[in-house]
Amino acid sequence: MKRKPNRVTSHVVAKLAGVSQPTVSRAFTPSASIAKDKRDRVLAAAKQLNYLPNSIASSLSKAHSNIVAVIVGDMNNPFYAESLEIFINRLQATGRQVLVFSVADGRDCDDVLMRALRYHVDGVVVTSAHLSSDLVSLSQGVGIPITLFNRSTADHALNAVLCNSITGSEILAQTMYDAGARRYLIVRGDPQGSTSRNRVKGFRDKLESLAVLPDAIEEIDGDSSYSGAFDTISERFADDGIQRPDAIFAVNDIMAMGCADALRDVFKLRIPEDVMLAGFDGIRPGQLAAYQLTTIRQPIEEMVEKTLELLDQTSMSDDDDETDQITQTDHLLAGTFVPGKTVPSTNI
Amino acid sequence: MKRKPNRVTSHVVAKLAGVSQPTVSRAFTPSASIAKDKRDRVLAAAKQLNYLPNSIASSLSKAHSNIVAVIVGDMNNPFYAESLEIFINRLQATGRQVLVFSVADGRDCDDVLMRALRYHVDGVVVTSAHLSSDLVSLSQGVGIPITLFNRSTADHALNAVLCNSITGSEILAQTMYDAGARRYLIVRGDPQGSTSRNRVKGFRDKLESLAVLPDAIEEIDGDSSYSGAFDTISERFADDGIQRPDAIFAVNDIMAMGCADALRDVFKLRIPEDVMLAGFDGIRPGQLAAYQLTTIRQPIEEMVEKTLELLDQTSMSDDDDETDQITQTDHLLAGTFVPGKTVPSTNI
Repeated sequence: MKRKPNRVTSHVVAKLAGVSQPTVSRAFTPSASIAKDKRDRVLAAAKQLNYLPNSIASSLSKAHSNIVAVIVGDMNNPFYAESLEIFINRLQATGRQVLVFSVADGRDCDDVLMRALRYHVDGVVVTSAHLSSDLVSLSQGVGIPITLFNRSTADHALNAVLCNSITGSEILAQTMYDAGARRYLIVRGDPQGSTSRNRVKGFRDKLESLAVLPDAIEEIDGDSSYSGAFDTISERFADDGIQRPDAIFAVNDIMAMGCADALRDVFKLRIPEDVMLAGFDGIRPGQLAAYQLTTIRQPIEEMVEKTLELLDQTSMSDDDDETDQITQTDHLLAGTFVPGKTVPSTNI
Repeated sequence: MKRKPNRVTSHVVAKLAGVSQPTVSRAFTPSASIAKDKRDRVLAAAKQLNYLPNSIASSLSKAHSNIVAVIVGDMNNPFYAESLEIFINRLQATGRQVLVFSVADGRDCDDVLMRALRYHVDGVVVTSAHLSSDLVSLSQGVGIPITLFNRSTADHALNAVLCNSITGSEILAQTMYDAGARRYLIVRGDPQGSTSRNRVKGFRDKLESLAVLPDAIEEIDGDSSYSGAFDTISERFADDGIQRPDAIFAVNDIMAMGCADALRDVFKLRIPEDVMLAGFDGIRPGQLAAYQLTTIRQPIEEMVEKTLELLDQTSMSDDDDETDQITQTDHLLAGTFVPGKTVPSTNI
């Protein structure tokens, strides 16, 4: 079957179906109120005439495509899949669609941002990757707002919605310290990402305020991934020459899961008896009975809501003065401490 | 910032940038070959003029939107997230975009199919849910192909791409039988889904061919989900009055993970020593050290490739005769047996 040219109008369909033109519109509007028999007649007439209304054509006249682009990072990390799911559900519920792009953590996303802009999307959500200033200012020039999700940047004037990594990591440091940990190992994520950097900083600063000496705090790279963390822990613990930590903080849950499996499977260590472990994010697999990570849960629902609110405000704003400095704001939402079972509970 | 009307043409941009019009096009084409300084000049000029090419407008003239709609099921099941990731990567690599919709397993997807059709997408991939015949024949009438992924239907003339559930489940039944299992429990998924039905059938038929009596094969519903399976196993094993099975087949991995956690956590049973367990799908979390499920891995990469090939063939086909019966074909691809650690290995 070849795409047929579509010159039939809704009026022709209305006539054939014996209904009014607005009824034809309603028959094609998801969840519109219309009697089933009328809808059936319209669809039968439309089928006979090969008619289909065109959201794209109507978006050209309305300057709204009703499409939001979401650029997600490495989908191996369930955090992105869980966030995407909520973006899809939220946008679907408000009659908008999601054009989704994937860019690995830390990779440049100019290519996909360009593609998104070409569809004149209503807004762009970036959960990952680096943006060139050229494309950012172009999108601002033509009035397509961009909001960062789960990361911020010092390079561009962009809104960002994030879970407060500093305060979350402080809670985890305090919890492990209270449980008796004295030698710490931090497993870092994307070295260029603001999220990993802030989590490391919050954790270190809190420990130092508790008088833990810097040489009792070690840092290694876990590649933001399960296998990266599994491998780096396997290597680190295989070295008998260095004193082992009694607490590990992986800056995200997917790495904490890799740490847990390496510790238990390769070294037969018990968590938390032999070594404590904490993650960050609150992803679903990290809360399965096999892991039950002590972690900070990001308020993904609220974060998605805030992100969409910011996109709407920006695209609705009446400010046409191009010389206005658009100010960047980081919108920080508080995470929730999840006690889990990988740090012993202390009764204070 | 308000969306600005965009009447500037690429010729105006070319003039300001001091380049040819095709150079302007190339500057906006992802991965096109163009010198960096030329691209910078074009973007600077575009920014000054608030110019952006419009993929939507060009899709109207070309009858190709370069958008494929993917309707995914419950994203709590990593199988869908993993499949979506591959669809995105494949389509991105061939210059197309993914408009993604989410519909829970077993729910009607007429609403979202209607939305997809309104964007005149090049094709629709349905991984979940039920379709009305009206919408299916409308989409066929206007030449927008639909392909089912990981399910088939007897109701409509639609192509379907699936992993062979029957042969896969037969292998699992044989493996458990060879390992000594004699009482079996099958945890079913979506009762209306072809996939769950075929997996149950393949498993049962093989057992019966091995002379296992029907009353040694029990079936319960696991709701296709981790928590559904966790709960149903918790309830079933709490009942001391009924003889416990020595082997459990959950028709997908996410349910097998729920079974594993309930068996170990609630009943302190060892897998496979006290009870064997097998799943189906080969999802990544099921292969983590904490689970290492014995399962059948679906060839997702191949399945995605086949699905896109079918969409392309159907939309390219020159057949304009509407009275032609479009024949449904199920394209079955073989899964791979993953030995795992939840069924004891037998040396034959």
